[in-house]
Amino acid sequence: MADRVFSGMRPTGKLHLGHMAGALTNWVNLQDSHECYYCVVDWHALMSDYADSSMLMENCREILLDWLAVGLDPSKCSIFVQSHVKEHAELSLALSMVTPLGWLERNPTYKDQILNLQNKDLSTYAFLGYPVLMAADILLYKAVKVPVGEDQSAHLELSREIARRFNYYFGEVFPEPQALHTTTPKIPGTDGRKMSKSYGNSLNIADDLNVLWDKLRTMMTDPARYKRTDPGDPDKCPVWDLHKFFNNDPEEMEELAHGCRTAGIGCVDCKRKLFGHIEVVMTPIHERRKSLEGDRSLLDGIIHEGARKARLVAQETMEEVYKAIGMLR
Amino acid sequence: MADRVFSGMRPTGKLHLGHMAGALTNWVNLQDSHECYYCVVDWHALMSDYADSSMLMENCREILLDWLAVGLDPSKCSIFVQSHVKEHAELSLALSMVTPLGWLERNPTYKDQILNLQNKDLSTYAFLGYPVLMAADILLYKAVKVPVGEDQSAHLELSREIARRFNYYFGEVFPEPQALHTTTPKIPGTDGRKMSKSYGNSLNIADDLNVLWDKLRTMMTDPARYKRTDPGDPDKCPVWDLHKFFNNDPEEMEELAHGCRTAGIGCVDCKRKLFGHIEVVMTPIHERRKSLEGDRSLLDGIIHEGARKARLVAQETMEEVYKAIGMLR
Repeated sequence: MADRVFSGMRPTGKLHLGHMAGALTNWVNLQDSHECYYCVVDWHALMSDYADSSMLMENCREILLDWLAVGLDPSKCSIFVQSHVKEHAELSLALSMVTPLGWLERNPTYKDQILNLQNKDLSTYAFLGYPVLMAADILLYKAVKVPVGEDQSAHLELSREIARRFNYYFGEVFPEPQALHTTTPKIPGTDGRKMSKSYGNSLNIADDLNVLWDKLRTMMTDPARYKRTDPGDPDKCPVWDLHKFFNNDPEEMEELAHGCRTAGIGCVDCKRKLFGHIEVVMTPIHERRKSLEGDRSLLDGIIHEGARKARLVAQETMEEVYKAIGMLR
Repeated sequence: MADRVFSGMRPTGKLHLGHMAGALTNWVNLQDSHECYYCVVDWHALMSDYADSSMLMENCREILLDWLAVGLDPSKCSIFVQSHVKEHAELSLALSMVTPLGWLERNPTYKDQILNLQNKDLSTYAFLGYPVLMAADILLYKAVKVPVGEDQSAHLELSREIARRFNYYFGEVFPEPQALHTTTPKIPGTDGRKMSKSYGNSLNIADDLNVLWDKLRTMMTDPARYKRTDPGDPDKCPVWDLHKFFNNDPEEMEELAHGCRTAGIGCVDCKRKLFGHIEVVMTPIHERRKSLEGDRSLLDGIIHEGARKARLVAQETMEEVYKAIGMLR
């Protein structure tokens, strides 16, 4: 049997090209070689957004549309919503029995998050238990590989420790999940910083071509190149990072780099070339997204079937958990 | 519709006459006038016994046998095991989103328990969340009446606060549960202290008549009555408290009290009279228990059907919860 892979994303809004180039391209590749469970973790989103949950449902739909548009294929992997599989809550409760409070209180990202999100009251019981639910998400599928960003490494380490502690008390039920770090391309936003919804510098997957071109046209380039006649340095240009991901024509790349360094071409020329490649990549993605947007029952069917497949594994794991603990069935 | 009643007990071993005279007689009465959900809260037991869960399954069976033996009637109420209804875990997770950590950390019984049970490591995430799961147990059935002991009043107040906070964020889903305090007779153990498993002074429901008589025969009486010829005071005698519950013959009670005060009768005489009444009450209970003990499939059928009935209500509540929060279904 192929190794199981689990990964989840919080539904907090539309995804951008950073998500696509980072996590999603990787997810799409994995679905051919692994048994993959991709989960919209709506409980995790609710932890920080409970005070205003009015966007939760729409955010779930948007993220699912983005996933399917970029190529996640429900015939190859399980695509589902966390709260549709009750066993996530069940296993989280079971794991909480053996999770020392101190592990959660000392979790460095916990304190960071509370400081970073000061406009939200995160001093809730659920938010402290974020890593317990995350451990349940992964362990429910006995996933051994978890594609995560570097920022999730501490949480994944906690998942392993929780798995180990459960196994210590009740016997070997869970394998220890390992992080799957892949080299993710650098995708800067329009202001040159990391692309992020909170910076307002995103090129979204769902943005149509006109919007993408508008954002790209005014995107920051090498800051030392004030005038058209100044030579530039591609290595200092955020637009160049996008070329590296979208441009599959090495000869053209060579010409553009030379033109930039010699002031032979202007930034808008370079952006137009880039836009040509973005257009090629994004057009079929937009077409898929459009066709799904118009057919809500298709999306509903996909997540219904995804939850059904996920539940088969989840229920099997829970039966093992109950047996290991020695609970009356 | 009759008011819904929810009550639960942790499966930690065989029940004793204190449980019978206190909670269970009350539960049996309520099943005729209310829609009652009686739940063996195995998750709650696991919170304190995770380090050794080897007795959990047997303890669940024993407590169910005790319940049925004293007259809980599966045709009148729902008798089930907490972990058999996944929605308890689900609602607990939902409620945890809006439960401030401070409410749990300041919960007076939390600190008491950690001090009282120093042989157990209770500094886990689950144990801190005890009141959240308890709130979920009750609110899942929208129970408005909760028969609880005085010691659970603080927890029930927390359940109300959690219900209120959920309703504040997401709309009126939950009614506020009220404690149902009934006058419970005083049932002392063989050493005169409160009957309790941990004191080793219990007369158990499952004890056969020989065992009950042995325990009763050596039970403490009025400590001032050293010798047979000393007059006694029924009001200072723990055996007299048992008479008050089991003896339904006021004339005999009068005679015994007089005999005690005048040293006309000895303590063993008085105990023999009491035992006669205990025999009358306990014999049918023991017969019911015996017949159930021998037929495991009967017990399995009862809790299977109980969980099915509970789930009908629980799933309805969860659909309301999801709708109120605005989660994708």
